[in-house]
Amino acid sequence: MSSPVKILVVGAGAIGGFYGAILHRAGAEVSVVARSDLAVLRERGYRISSPLGDLSFQPSKVYASTEEVEESPDYLIVSLKLIKSVDRIGIMRPAVGPNTAIVLIQNGIDIEPEVVEAFPNNPLISCLAFVGVSRVAPGKLEHKAYGRLVFGNYPRGVSAEAERLSALLEAGGINTQLSEDVVRERWLKSVWNTAFNPSSVLAGGADTQTLLTTPGGEELIRGFMEEVCATAAAAGYPLPADIIDKNISATKKMPAYHNSMALDFLNGREMEIEPMLGNVVRIARKHGVPVPRLETMYGLLQLLVANKASNAQ
Amino acid sequence: MSSPVKILVVGAGAIGGFYGAILHRAGAEVSVVARSDLAVLRERGYRISSPLGDLSFQPSKVYASTEEVEESPDYLIVSLKLIKSVDRIGIMRPAVGPNTAIVLIQNGIDIEPEVVEAFPNNPLISCLAFVGVSRVAPGKLEHKAYGRLVFGNYPRGVSAEAERLSALLEAGGINTQLSEDVVRERWLKSVWNTAFNPSSVLAGGADTQTLLTTPGGEELIRGFMEEVCATAAAAGYPLPADIIDKNISATKKMPAYHNSMALDFLNGREMEIEPMLGNVVRIARKHGVPVPRLETMYGLLQLLVANKASNAQ
Repeated sequence: MSSPVKILVVGAGAIGGFYGAILHRAGAEVSVVARSDLAVLRERGYRISSPLGDLSFQPSKVYASTEEVEESPDYLIVSLKLIKSVDRIGIMRPAVGPNTAIVLIQNGIDIEPEVVEAFPNNPLISCLAFVGVSRVAPGKLEHKAYGRLVFGNYPRGVSAEAERLSALLEAGGINTQLSEDVVRERWLKSVWNTAFNPSSVLAGGADTQTLLTTPGGEELIRGFMEEVCATAAAAGYPLPADIIDKNISATKKMPAYHNSMALDFLNGREMEIEPMLGNVVRIARKHGVPVPRLETMYGLLQLLVANKASNAQ
Repeated sequence: MSSPVKILVVGAGAIGGFYGAILHRAGAEVSVVARSDLAVLRERGYRISSPLGDLSFQPSKVYASTEEVEESPDYLIVSLKLIKSVDRIGIMRPAVGPNTAIVLIQNGIDIEPEVVEAFPNNPLISCLAFVGVSRVAPGKLEHKAYGRLVFGNYPRGVSAEAERLSALLEAGGINTQLSEDVVRERWLKSVWNTAFNPSSVLAGGADTQTLLTTPGGEELIRGFMEEVCATAAAAGYPLPADIIDKNISATKKMPAYHNSMALDFLNGREMEIEPMLGNVVRIARKHGVPVPRLETMYGLLQLLVANKASNAQ
């Protein structure tokens, strides 16, 4: 037998722990770099309840920092939050070897270029997670639903490393979808994320149904989505004509819920403003696409953050 | 000697109490309709500190409701907040006699038509207050600065009643400016109010300096102001070309402060969204002026209010 695939997960929260568990289940050797839950993870690993069964596992190694990593992994899974206070590249650097494939499981648009610049010779696999999983206590995760991972190499294509990762994840029990054009997948997901996430925050942490049932709310959300579609088209990714209607009607059918940015806001955590919204606004400006609605939302969100920081001083 | 001018103030908070005091000082007979501070006002009247001297006074009558008013006044001063939960017309009706001049000291754009419709035969004087005055305790006001009142008849002109009111206010110690075109004055003031008030709320109750010094903030505010100017022009009120620059530079020179809507928001009070913003958006739509920035701000503000109401349930 060949030696197991070596995986290192950086950002060992709900997303990283869950996909780490799936890969462990598939026979990979999974280590993690943890910050807050270090002691618990070293002592007893992850406890993970899931409709897939008990996914609890003990990582092979639990590092406090990538500086401690002796052997670079085959796959470096990066599931850190994409926020200003986290130096993603600096954290990754000590763990990236010449043959390491970098796997981003992170939200947003245009989040890959700085990784390509830092590690130009490593394969870069860019992933979109469709999963409902939460950290309910240190080292304890609840996987509620879904789990599908859509991915491909950045800027395009599907490499042998991506195929191999897909096979492992499928063996671990989740559905994967390989895409020759992962940037397009990111734009498709951004239609929802860029419209709903920041507006839920500016509405005080509103849930999806409040956004859609308040008079004027659906029109507002559609306005944001139209500007995302116009930007995607100008960037070379024309999206299906019915994507807005489909996003709206699918969301109406779901129970009310708080999206990730609303939850960050309500819990006083730093928000992923740039990958969700700021990068879309910058791409629009670069292509001369007018996005006054997104610009307004972006400006107001920056003021909200600045005001909170100034009140905290 | 002729009998004194009879004034009735409806909405006897900071603004109503202050201008009531000025008119009392000028020799008018000033009564008030009070809600929350009724007992205190009946017992000992207003205590008002001011750079103009001690403005404390005992109103001639303190009514709990306009239903109690026996004799209709010469001037009915309306300084109620313009919010959905206050039925301004219903409150005014019992006090308006055939010779009563109605005097609105209220914020916003297009706030007069419903008053004209309800009282088509009464003179209507529309006023803009430039004053820093706060209610610091029941019946107790602090007048800090300014006091100027700009007014004229609606929709235009300056009637004898307006001239007489101006003379009284000047005799009471404040500066007035009569305007043949008060709607234009409202648009001039709206450039600031419509831009700063709602954005301060969406920024979490930010003060003026936070709005202007945060990167992107000034640009955002200028964008709102441009849409207000375009709307005003389409409505027949082209504003001076330098009005935006002047508003921005004047605000930068002032100490940081919270505008009225920010204070309402921070204190959990109902906000004057329609007169400040909603009416501007509706006038823009009527004239086919694109105002995507104001529409976005208006939509988000409505979501914020709806979310707060749904959380309170």
